[in-house]
Amino acid sequence: MFVFQNCTFQKCNTGVISDKTMSKTELEGFRNKIRAELDRTVDFWVKHSHDQEYGGFFTCLGKDGTPYDDLKYVWLQGRQVWMYCRLYRTVDRFRTPEILQAAKAGKKKLKPLFHSLVTTAPKRQCGPGMQNNQTDHVGLRTELHTERVKQLKLFSLNKEESGHPSEAVRVMDQIVHWVRVDPSGLGRPEMPGAVPLNAMAVPMMLLCLVDQLEEGRGELAEKYSELGQWCVQQILQHVQRDGTAILENVSKDGKELSGCQGRHQNPGHALEAGWFLLQYAVRHGDEGLKRTAIEKFMILPFHAGWDQQQGGLFYFLDVDGHCPTQLEWSMKLWWPHCEALIAFLMGYTETSDPRLLERFSQVYSYTFTHFPDSEHGEWFGYLNRKGEVELDFKGGPFKGFFHVPRCLYMCERLLDGLLGKPQAS
Amino acid sequence: MFVFQNCTFQKCNTGVISDKTMSKTELEGFRNKIRAELDRTVDFWVKHSHDQEYGGFFTCLGKDGTPYDDLKYVWLQGRQVWMYCRLYRTVDRFRTPEILQAAKAGKKKLKPLFHSLVTTAPKRQCGPGMQNNQTDHVGLRTELHTERVKQLKLFSLNKEESGHPSEAVRVMDQIVHWVRVDPSGLGRPEMPGAVPLNAMAVPMMLLCLVDQLEEGRGELAEKYSELGQWCVQQILQHVQRDGTAILENVSKDGKELSGCQGRHQNPGHALEAGWFLLQYAVRHGDEGLKRTAIEKFMILPFHAGWDQQQGGLFYFLDVDGHCPTQLEWSMKLWWPHCEALIAFLMGYTETSDPRLLERFSQVYSYTFTHFPDSEHGEWFGYLNRKGEVELDFKGGPFKGFFHVPRCLYMCERLLDGLLGKPQAS
Repeated sequence: MFVFQNCTFQKCNTGVISDKTMSKTELEGFRNKIRAELDRTVDFWVKHSHDQEYGGFFTCLGKDGTPYDDLKYVWLQGRQVWMYCRLYRTVDRFRTPEILQAAKAGKKKLKPLFHSLVTTAPKRQCGPGMQNNQTDHVGLRTELHTERVKQLKLFSLNKEESGHPSEAVRVMDQIVHWVRVDPSGLGRPEMPGAVPLNAMAVPMMLLCLVDQLEEGRGELAEKYSELGQWCVQQILQHVQRDGTAILENVSKDGKELSGCQGRHQNPGHALEAGWFLLQYAVRHGDEGLKRTAIEKFMILPFHAGWDQQQGGLFYFLDVDGHCPTQLEWSMKLWWPHCEALIAFLMGYTETSDPRLLERFSQVYSYTFTHFPDSEHGEWFGYLNRKGEVELDFKGGPFKGFFHVPRCLYMCERLLDGLLGKPQAS
Repeated sequence: MFVFQNCTFQKCNTGVISDKTMSKTELEGFRNKIRAELDRTVDFWVKHSHDQEYGGFFTCLGKDGTPYDDLKYVWLQGRQVWMYCRLYRTVDRFRTPEILQAAKAGKKKLKPLFHSLVTTAPKRQCGPGMQNNQTDHVGLRTELHTERVKQLKLFSLNKEESGHPSEAVRVMDQIVHWVRVDPSGLGRPEMPGAVPLNAMAVPMMLLCLVDQLEEGRGELAEKYSELGQWCVQQILQHVQRDGTAILENVSKDGKELSGCQGRHQNPGHALEAGWFLLQYAVRHGDEGLKRTAIEKFMILPFHAGWDQQQGGLFYFLDVDGHCPTQLEWSMKLWWPHCEALIAFLMGYTETSDPRLLERFSQVYSYTFTHFPDSEHGEWFGYLNRKGEVELDFKGGPFKGFFHVPRCLYMCERLLDGLLGKPQAS
C-alpha cells in the first residue's frame, strides 16, 4: 500500500466519497451510465460530423451539432478515424457498416495529406484558435503523427501480417529522428534565446506511440524496447521538488528551470502521463514503475490540481502558488477530467486500493454533473472556475471525437473487467 | 453630427450616462482622478520594476509589486523606456532625475540587444505565457520594433538634429520591407496552407510608427506620406458587412475571410485603431477620415463589444454571435478599456458630440470601479466575465508600464485641453 504524499483522505475529501470499498451495485451504476454516455457521444458525431459532400469530418460543431466552420482540423480527422477503428475492432455493438464506412472515408480523405504531414506537419493546417501551449511546437506535431500512426497502423495490419514494412513504422522512425536526433525537419526553427527543455508532451506522446505500435505485435516490442525505456526516463525527469511535484517543463538534464516556465504545472497532462506509464508498467511487469505512476503521476497532480472551493481540476497552476500567466489557468476543461477518470480507474484495477476508486468517484461526480449536455448530447468542453459553461461548442480546435469517447470506452472496459463481464460486449 | 449605426442612445445605456453635456465640474472630476491615478501608477513601477543590480526593468510583478519571475520581456523594456521618455519630455512633474536615470538605464540595457532585434525580432525572447494571437507572428514583431523605434527616436533627437540618419529611420525602412515587400526576414516561415491575410495589427502599428516618426519632424512627413496613406487604406479594409462591423482579419484584397478567422472581432483593437486613425485624420485635416474613425472604429466596436449584462468590453467576439474558440473570449481585459477611454475622449475633443463623452463616462465608470487595486496600486489586468479579478499580477507577458500610463497620460492631457488648462503641467 503506497502513501498519499501531502494528502490525507480528509484533506482531499470534497466530493461524494465514502471511506469503504464501493459495492458492486455502485460499480454497475458507473458502468451503465458510462456505457450509455458513450453511445450518445458516438451518435452525436455520427449524426453531425460526417461531411457527405466532400468527405472527412466536420470538427467545428456548435452546441446542437451544427457546424460553425467547415475547417477540418487534420489532427482531429486522424483521431476520429483512430477512435472509429478502435470502437469497430473491439466493441461488438459498434461493429456496424456505418462506422466502418465512416472510418474508411476518413482514411481516404487523409491519405493524400499524409506525405506532407510526415514531412512538414503544418501546425497552421490545424487552423485558427490554437491555444497557447509551450510544447505544441514539437508536441502538437508529435501528437499529430501519433494519431496518423495509430490510424495507419490500424489500417495496415494486413500488410504487416504479410510482412511488408508498415507506413506506421516508417513514420515512427521519422518522429524518433525529430525527437532524439534533429528537430530541424519540423520546419519551425527555435528562436534565439529559447531555453532547451524537456517538455512532458514529447516523451508522453512517444510512449503512447510505442504502446500503440507494440499492441498485438510481438515483433515490434523488441525494436521499440530501448525507446520505451527512454520515454519513461524522460517522463520521470518531471518528478521534481524531492518527489513532491510534477513540473511540466524541465531542463534537458532533468533539473528544474527558473521562473514561471519551470514552475508550470498541467495536472491533466500529468494524470494522462500517469495512465500511459501505468499501462507500460503493467505490460512490462514493472512493479516499481506501477507505484511511481500512481503515487507521483496520479495522486500528486490530483491533489495539486483539484479546486478545493469549487471542485474540478484547474487547467494550469504554478507550483509555488503564484498566479499563472495563462489567461485560462482557472478554467475547468473536459479533457483533464477524462484523463483523471481513466487514470484512477486503471489505478484501482491494478492495485484494488479503495482510495483510488474514491478519487475516481469524486472526479466522476464532478464530471457527470458539469460536462454532459443533456439537451443536445456530447459534452461541453470549457467551464469557468465556478463550473459554468463558458464556451458552448462541442467540437473545436482541440475538441474532437477523441478524449470523451476514449475515456468512456476505456472506463467501460475497465469497469467490465472489475465486474467480471466479458469485454467487447 | 454623425449617426450612431445600429445603436440608439437607449440601447447602449448601461452605465452612468446623462443625456446632457457634462458640466465642467464633472470633467474636473475625471481629470483629477486620472491625474492622481497616473501618479500612483508611475510610483508603482518606479518603486518595484527597476533592477538596480543588472539594469533594465522587471516586467513580471505580482499583486504587491514583488517580482515572481526575473524574466524581462524585451518589448516591455522598450515600452517602459518610451513611456518614461514621453513623461519626462512632456510633463513637468515627471521631469525628475529619477525618471531620466531609469530611462537611460533601460536604453543602455536595450542597446546591445538592438541589432539582434532588428534582424531576428525573437518572439521567444518575450518568454513564456504568450497569448494565442493569430497576428503576433508579424504583429508582435512589428509592435516590438514600433517600441524600439519610439525609444530610439526619442533618444536620437540630437543626432537627427545634427543631420545624421537616425537608427529609427533605418529600422523603419526594415519594417516597411518586412510588411510590404518580403516577410521572410522575420524568420518564421508561414506554414503551408496558411491563408494570406490582412491582420489589422500590422497596418495599425505601422500607422502608429508613422505618427511617432512624423511627430515634431517636418522633414519625415513627406518621406512617410505615402506609407501613412497605405496604412489607412489597409485599416479601412477591415470595415465589413456593408459598414456595420469591424473584422480583425480580412483577405489581402479586403474581402471577408470564411469561417471563424473571418468572423473574428477584437473590439479593443478596433477602438485603438480608431484613435490612431483619428489622430492621423486630425494631423492631416481629413474630415471624412475623422468621421469614419469615430463612426466605424469607435461606435461600432463599442456597441458590438460592450457586455450588456455584466458591463465591460469582451475580449473577442464572433460577428455572427457564434461562441469564439478562444478560451479567454469573455474576459474583461484592462487594455481595451484603456483604448476606449482614449478613443472616446479624443473623439469628444474633436467633435464636441456629447454622446462620445457619455461613452467615455460609461467606460470610465466600469474601469475605475473594476481595474485599479486600491491596496497596492496599479491596475489588475484580467477580470472574468462578471468583472472579478481572475489573474492578479500587475506585470506579465503582455502587461507592462505601457497601456495604463499611456491611457492616463493621454486622458489627462485631453481633459486639460477641454478644461482650458495649460498642458505639461
